[in-house]
Amino acid sequence: MHEINIPEIVAEVTAAHDRYEQALTTNDIAVLDELFWDSPHTLRYGATENLYGADQIAAFRRARSTANLERDVPKVVITTYGRDYATANLEFKRVTSERIGRQSQTWLRTDDGWRIVAAHVSLMIEPAG
Amino acid sequence: MHEINIPEIVAEVTAAHDRYEQALTTNDIAVLDELFWDSPHTLRYGATENLYGADQIAAFRRARSTANLERDVPKVVITTYGRDYATANLEFKRVTSERIGRQSQTWLRTDDGWRIVAAHVSLMIEPAG
Repeated sequence: MHEINIPEIVAEVTAAHDRYEQALTTNDIAVLDELFWDSPHTLRYGATENLYGADQIAAFRRARSTANLERDVPKVVITTYGRDYATANLEFKRVTSERIGRQSQTWLRTDDGWRIVAAHVSLMIEPAG
Repeated sequence: MHEINIPEIVAEVTAAHDRYEQALTTNDIAVLDELFWDSPHTLRYGATENLYGADQIAAFRRARSTANLERDVPKVVITTYGRDYATANLEFKRVTSERIGRQSQTWLRTDDGWRIVAAHVSLMIEPAG
């Protein structure tokens, strides 16, 4: 079994994750491109789109609205499995919406550093009360 | 860099993934419990809930409606990274809904076999046309 949450590995992934979050809210497309694995296997399910391969993801970055990118992130869970694999999951809330968003990323250590190999972003449906 | 999609590893993960899909549509709770990593680190974001830890996930299984579990799965992408890490992503459509669902799973080889360490299920929002 791979050792869970080796402190130095958690620190590495947290740094990469923080860099991604910063790039997301400032629309730093170069960093967003860099941190997604440059591969046809990479995929990203977004709130309104399903993207397959780094090329589709990069095209999406260039087309998306850059309004209201700021968000609060009340909960983040980063877990590492051994030295080369990690998941980062968070809940977010945009200033412009009451709905709870969720972002899931799977990270892999590559020869170029930590990269996101799969991601899923969605808005939670409020259960009927 | 971990070797991507070693055929025997893809076969292993595909078998585990197929077992999960079968258990999901037949509501085989024992198998669903088994295939999620038994850990407080495990998490599952569902269409209407955010669950942290294997205990919350197991409780959810026992409370959810078992109506209309059948679904079509028009697209599945399984990718393996080395011998111990994998992602499984799919699009689904329930017979009772027109909306496109997405399911993302991060799999890890544990001492007990392949287990889901993180999952995210959501319904895509149709872009305003």
